Amino acid sequence: MRNRQVILVSRPTGIPQADCFAISDADMPVPGEGEILVRNHYLSVEPAMRGWIVDVGNYSAPVGIGEVMRSLASGVVEASNHPDYKPGDHVAGWFGWQDYAAVSIDKIVQRTTMAEMTQVLGILGINGITAYLGLTTVGQPKPGETVVVSTAAGSVGSAVGQIARILGCRTVGIAGGAEKAASCVADFGYDAGIDYRNEDVSARIAEACPNGVDIYFDNTSGPISDAVLPHLALRGRVVICGTASISRWDQWPTGPRVERHLLIKRARMEGFVIFDHMHHLDEAVAQLREWIAQGKLNFHEDIADGIEACSDSIAGVYRGENKGKRLIRLI
Amino acid sequence: MRNRQVILVSRPTGIPQADCFAISDADMPVPGEGEILVRNHYLSVEPAMRGWIVDVGNYSAPVGIGEVMRSLASGVVEASNHPDYKPGDHVAGWFGWQDYAAVSIDKIVQRTTMAEMTQVLGILGINGITAYLGLTTVGQPKPGETVVVSTAAGSVGSAVGQIARILGCRTVGIAGGAEKAASCVADFGYDAGIDYRNEDVSARIAEACPNGVDIYFDNTSGPISDAVLPHLALRGRVVICGTASISRWDQWPTGPRVERHLLIKRARMEGFVIFDHMHHLDEAVAQLREWIAQGKLNFHEDIADGIEACSDSIAGVYRGENKGKRLIRLI
Repeated sequence: MRNRQVILVSRPTGIPQADCFAISDADMPVPGEGEILVRNHYLSVEPAMRGWIVDVGNYSAPVGIGEVMRSLASGVVEASNHPDYKPGDHVAGWFGWQDYAAVSIDKIVQRTTMAEMTQVLGILGINGITAYLGLTTVGQPKPGETVVVSTAAGSVGSAVGQIARILGCRTVGIAGGAEKAASCVADFGYDAGIDYRNEDVSARIAEACPNGVDIYFDNTSGPISDAVLPHLALRGRVVICGTASISRWDQWPTGPRVERHLLIKRARMEGFVIFDHMHHLDEAVAQLREWIAQGKLNFHEDIADGIEACSDSIAGVYRGENKGKRLIRLI
Repeated sequence: MRNRQVILVSRPTGIPQADCFAISDADMPVPGEGEILVRNHYLSVEPAMRGWIVDVGNYSAPVGIGEVMRSLASGVVEASNHPDYKPGDHVAGWFGWQDYAAVSIDKIVQRTTMAEMTQVLGILGINGITAYLGLTTVGQPKPGETVVVSTAAGSVGSAVGQIARILGCRTVGIAGGAEKAASCVADFGYDAGIDYRNEDVSARIAEACPNGVDIYFDNTSGPISDAVLPHLALRGRVVICGTASISRWDQWPTGPRVERHLLIKRARMEGFVIFDHMHHLDEAVAQLREWIAQGKLNFHEDIADGIEACSDSIAGVYRGENKGKRLIRLI
């Protein structure tokens, strides 16, 4: 038995392309004392991975060259040297882009079930809890407020829009292309969907948000944000969750200054990183699971097969190819 | 008796110069029912006045062309049609750039005394309470934190730095010119003073703030802010209080994007406008007065004589000519 691994072989200067990675064929890992051996069923692909593999400042240390690509994954325990886990247990955690991982149990994020093996990486995992906790802790939505979301049909954005709606807000989604903008309304209940590729975002925001934007959940930065910010309502909140529209940070991008908007509107912009909030994981997952059971929270998954799909998968997300949470199925 | 008034005659596109104003000779105003007649002793000059006379978006409706320039002033009640005020009372409020004002009592901001007639327009007025409430409500300083202030020797900034120090923070001031940078340390107790005109602000911040910037109290926007933001500490707070370095907003300025800083540092930027917080005026003034009495809070006043000094006074503040709170003495 061998262990196929996706190795980081070079650091990208912009969006990481397939040639940043190589598939390696390694020996089967052996769990050490207190460790477990997990066979991965699904690997997660995140836009944020871009930040994990560059060596400019980020919220975590970068993956080293020659190391297995860091990722969340879900799988089944095959062997265990820890009393709390036994073979056959389903777990999700930081197992990396590989078939098998021998890890200490602090790499486990949560237990799961065969039925939720994909959801635990998306709507019941990092994406859903980012949406829920980012919106509620930084955004602090109140019923009747207007919430605008960028990458509104994506795995985080679509959850933000639906949760805001559940909490009584009017929701406006911004997405790339007519199909995704239509999906915002049809699949995720947004009051309006804006196609930033083919529409005048500022004009459409003005039309869709006659009382201004109380919360802007920003996954993009860039020209989309520049079009939204002048429409902030008094005491508006901007949740900075991602910067998907910025292709590289080694040449720091410029844009219209934000200070005057924040001053005039007494508005607030604040960065949100889910890893600060993992102590609220269980309550967030329970709430999300309840909304899914009630039919209030829809989600899309876009599953590719085989570890070979990993290398180009981050670039694919930035090309907007995926229709929902991008996962790689191994078995 | 006549009433000299400073009238807004044209709107500036950049910093308002003297030719935006004209001195007019009007009839003495007569207080109506419920109104008082105030004789102004001191007129206030604020950097923020620039925003009050342009017709792009701001936090208050602009002064109309042909109207008396809006300003805070302090003076003595000469006649009263209101039971709560009597001739001889000392008051500060929205009396405008003129000798006499007949106003309803909602224009009064606070009562004062002959001894505090200048302070009520500065350290015990809009500047001091902006410093105190902006720092404490948005900045939320904790002992041991590092606070960086722009326009650090100015009437707001010098109070921010001293209050932060009183609250147990390390303080670093940024000001224009060697003299003002030295004054930051000598007069206002900053741990370091940075001269943005002649020093590398980013390098000096890195040196003076080895643990990063927990609070940046921003009165300038522009290149000074651009040099400070990359040094934000984790969970740093940026109080957006003014945009003094931006000469015009009709050609919206650009700068390095802020989203990535806020995301990586989970930092917060928030606009602060004192007029939202006037319900805390009395407690703020009491606290400031106590610190002054204890010798902990120093302040500079720079008083010009005669209403003719008004017209060029805003431009003078932006030229950095004043050494402390700029006031115009009428009698």
